[in-house]
Amino acid sequence: MIACANAHTPLSEEQMMSRPSFDDLPARLAAFAVERDWEQFHSPKNLAMAIAAEAGELLENFQWLSDTESRELPEPKRDEAALEMADVLLYLVLLARHLGVDLVAAAHRKIDLNAAKYPVDRARGHSRKYTDL
Amino acid sequence: MIACANAHTPLSEEQMMSRPSFDDLPARLAAFAVERDWEQFHSPKNLAMAIAAEAGELLENFQWLSDTESRELPEPKRDEAALEMADVLLYLVLLARHLGVDLVAAAHRKIDLNAAKYPVDRARGHSRKYTDL
Amino acid sequence: MIACANAHTPLSEEQMMSRPSFDDLPARLAAFAVERDWEQFHSPKNLAMAIAAEAGELLENFQWLSDTESRELPEPKRDEAALEMADVLLYLVLLARHLGVDLVAAAHRKIDLNAAKYPVDRARGHSRKYTDL
Amino acid sequence: MIACANAHTPLSEEQMMSRPSFDDLPARLAAFAVERDWEQFHSPKNLAMAIAAEAGELLENFQWLSDTESRELPEPKRDEAALEMADVLLYLVLLARHLGVDLVAAAHRKIDLNAAKYPVDRARGHSRKYTDL
Repeated sequence: MIACANAHTPLSEEQMMSRPSFDDLPARLAAFAVERDWEQFHSPKNLAMAIAAEAGELLENFQWLSDTESRELPEPKRDEAALEMADVLLYLVLLARHLGVDLVAAAHRKIDLNAAKYPVDRARGHSRKYTDL
Repeated sequence: MIACANAHTPLSEEQMMSRPSFDDLPARLAAFAVERDWEQFHSPKNLAMAIAAEAGELLENFQWLSDTESRELPEPKRDEAALEMADVLLYLVLLARHLGVDLVAAAHRKIDLNAAKYPVDRARGHSRKYTDL
Repeated sequence: MIACANAHTPLSEEQMMSRPSFDDLPARLAAFAVERDWEQFHSPKNLAMAIAAEAGELLENFQWLSDTESRELPEPKRDEAALEMADVLLYLVLLARHLGVDLVAAAHRKIDLNAAKYPVDRARGHSRKYTDL
Repeated sequence: MIACANAHTPLSEEQMMSRPSFDDLPARLAAFAVERDWEQFHSPKNLAMAIAAEAGELLENFQWLSDTESRELPEPKRDEAALEMADVLLYLVLLARHLGVDLVAAAHRKIDLNAAKYPVDRARGHSRKYTDL
């Protein structure tokens, strides 16, 4: 099953130590692809397409819901969304591996860049783009 | 700078121990949003849209390239793609936090499901969908 | 300028007769591409990527807006969205031409199929998928 | 069936006169939605999401194909793509109607703008962005 860590029931130390981590994903994905002789299909171009295709599937989970309904998703719907999100993540990790990109470092770097683009005093409380602050 | 871990130059133990991890992302993103009073915009619906919008931007990096050109991306282009990929990941992590989804567990779970849908002996060497194996 | 036909100010007969039509688009796009020697980049694969990339840009116009704000878009924002929508349409028309697909006939055909999948008595008033009617 | 107009077999005058046109689509779609009490779901925000979701489905038709394979699509695969393209077009037309946008005029206008951004002498033969001509 999907172990869900949320604000109320964090994973125990034991669970944290045994649970497969983010860093385990690239090797699992590499083995999976090599076993099936699928690396031929995994050009960065194709992987970028796959990411966008899966992001499109994730949208379908929400496209007719109101904002509020999306904040109160029933559990079966949330589990469906979780698997679509997993698809996006898996292709992202594969693409990072093929491009030689450290995805986590890039993500932390991007938060730094965003903090500079959207200083708190000017960005607070609205969603205007950084060019319109 | 973006520390790139690839097959030839893995991070040293020292770098691994100090480097911000995947698990540090949710807290950084939460703080970033709260400081700017942006949580009002972060409904799962809106976050799903943001993921798809960023996936679309990532596509632009590759849409006119050949398969081969995409496998031989010059470094500046690869760094651009890294930041677009970071955008996708950041919104994915935010969405997971808001939905109470363990993204990494879901990803590992999805690999298990895919292994069952695409047994090696029947899936090897071609890209046909699991309904056409 | 963009001539907008809405419920209150339809185009006059004179405007209708002189205005470039949907059927004029393929030839204009073909000439545009040939002049620039761009047909080499217009594989169906690349065009599908371009459609998704532009659809992603269109999403950005709406991703932080509420449902109501999106229904009451100020004119400058509506004009921006119009140009993003134009981008999606242009690549769709190009792709149709390259694949030998009659886009309008396919669209009318799809409405017929949807009418069968979503009979009024069972589909009315809710957004459930045809598999859950 | 889908009548395909391509370079070799254009539609006859008779076919052109009886065939449902692009301009017939908005009214058909409006009636379809009103009959099913679906207009409540058709905010521009939701319609933009639907366009991107369908663009994602269209991508799936091509994501593992080579550029060449995509140029030589077998007929059943081309018909599948035609229906996905129809989905994108239908939501685009619906969105245009709800926003009061003349989609065709915007498309022709966009070609004009592109011609200025990409003058033949500087854009010919390569795919660099207009900022890098």
